[in-house]
Amino acid sequence: MTTPAWTAFLDEERPRIEAALDRALSVPPECPSIVLEAMRYSLLGGGKRMRPLLVLASAGAVARRAGGSLDDARRLAMPAACAIEMIHTYSLIHDDLPAMDDDALRRGRPTLHVLHGEGLAVLAGDGLHAEAFVVLARDPESDDPVITARKLAVIRLVGEAAGPAGMVGGQALDLAAVEAPTGRPMTPEALEDMHARKTGALIRASALAGAMMAGADPATAAAVGRYGTAIGLAFQIVDDILDIEGNAAGLGKTAGKDAAAGKPTYPAIHGIDRSRALAADCLARADAALADAGLADSLLRDIGRWIVARTS
Amino acid sequence: MTTPAWTAFLDEERPRIEAALDRALSVPPECPSIVLEAMRYSLLGGGKRMRPLLVLASAGAVARRAGGSLDDARRLAMPAACAIEMIHTYSLIHDDLPAMDDDALRRGRPTLHVLHGEGLAVLAGDGLHAEAFVVLARDPESDDPVITARKLAVIRLVGEAAGPAGMVGGQALDLAAVEAPTGRPMTPEALEDMHARKTGALIRASALAGAMMAGADPATAAAVGRYGTAIGLAFQIVDDILDIEGNAAGLGKTAGKDAAAGKPTYPAIHGIDRSRALAADCLARADAALADAGLADSLLRDIGRWIVARTS
Repeated sequence: MTTPAWTAFLDEERPRIEAALDRALSVPPECPSIVLEAMRYSLLGGGKRMRPLLVLASAGAVARRAGGSLDDARRLAMPAACAIEMIHTYSLIHDDLPAMDDDALRRGRPTLHVLHGEGLAVLAGDGLHAEAFVVLARDPESDDPVITARKLAVIRLVGEAAGPAGMVGGQALDLAAVEAPTGRPMTPEALEDMHARKTGALIRASALAGAMMAGADPATAAAVGRYGTAIGLAFQIVDDILDIEGNAAGLGKTAGKDAAAGKPTYPAIHGIDRSRALAADCLARADAALADAGLADSLLRDIGRWIVARTS
Repeated sequence: MTTPAWTAFLDEERPRIEAALDRALSVPPECPSIVLEAMRYSLLGGGKRMRPLLVLASAGAVARRAGGSLDDARRLAMPAACAIEMIHTYSLIHDDLPAMDDDALRRGRPTLHVLHGEGLAVLAGDGLHAEAFVVLARDPESDDPVITARKLAVIRLVGEAAGPAGMVGGQALDLAAVEAPTGRPMTPEALEDMHARKTGALIRASALAGAMMAGADPATAAAVGRYGTAIGLAFQIVDDILDIEGNAAGLGKTAGKDAAAGKPTYPAIHGIDRSRALAADCLARADAALADAGLADSLLRDIGRWIVARTS
């Protein structure tokens, strides 16, 4: 199912992403080591790096179609790749807090609040959140007005995807469904809306940020946005399924939590088989969007398959 | 002590700031009302609006000295004024959490976590944090490359001031001093460093953001930065004094909390009289910086006096 190009991409880009994330955080004494170490523990503690890979694959796909340099496009998109991973990581730290999902295990290690207390966990999350926007705004090439305008557009995109209309709004809906259950199952539409915000918005923004940094025209950006929406929903459906079928060792986090917490999930509303079929539908929509943009043979197609076939 | 120009400025700009903050938050159904209402409760619940006023006063002062339009400069600086107030508000929400300062009263009203629970308070803070950067990046004038470059520089400035090297770093030092006391009083240098980050960084960024949006040259920006550092420290010294001498009704928050929590403060380290003298020193340094920049007769001078003379 995976192509040699996809394997080569992972082998080449994952170490670059790790190195860029490592460099992205400011150093003491400029930054007190107490909060920096906490941020580094969470940011550099593994993870699939799916969102940064998506940013880079999208930038590369758009550049290749336009006959541009793959390396230039990926280099230009790397700050967005790092920033989105920082935002994703901060959301995991806050999500794991006792007042939210109350999880003690993440990426196979103790969660930050278990190690350093809730106060520092809140602050380390806030620090990663702020630093994400610093990374997006900081760049040696900021003198070029075309690049500067793209960066400003990506900041708006990422802020909207992370904020109350996106990820934070989805988390709030999730929290409300658990804390103040209505007594009725969530409708399929409400569930899709919650998932589209909670996980989908930042995944869509990943695909779109890469395309925008590579200079995608509006029609291409719109198609990449549709692709991102589809794989974002697929990702969360598969996540819901893995929470039931996976195990803590493979997932690196506590399995079975959603059902125990009475969370609205795809398997809870639709059943497992129908959930799998819905994930496959998402993949078909993603492929169609790529075809619309002339990007059907790009690595973005492999990422869609990876998302749906993953086991952790 | 206050000038007619200062009174006119407050009368004119405060309602504009309130209106701009009200407009700045996205609306349902784009944004789930549950998190939006929580964000609005905290953002629109009063407050002195000191930071936004500082942004606008600074923009106006730089524009006036250059013979430019005061109105244009303040309009151009309004997104930064709103963004910084959003970041300040998010930091208050997170700071009031049980895992941090555990405060039940803020601006004379129940804190957000008391009303809506800790989970939603964390999320509403995160939502305001993200939205601040959206506001900074969103603007009808983004086609002008000069303005676009200024906005990107202000995003970097605000992100650094809010992040682990600034506000979040200062909060982490504060938290560590209370949770893991060394048994020795904090040194005056360590106290100043903590205060400079915790409160000073965002106040300095307020003054600087206004100047930058108005197109300040590097020498002027440097002087405004020195002014901001000085009044930022003065603000926190006076805050420490008010925590001892103030009362809950005037402050709108619980008084005497710092001493009860064993927090390192200026009065605790230096005594009240010496703390007052140090605040006066800061004001003298602020005035000197304004004189360096040819801004001695601007409203920035009044803001310095307001900060030191305030009783709430």
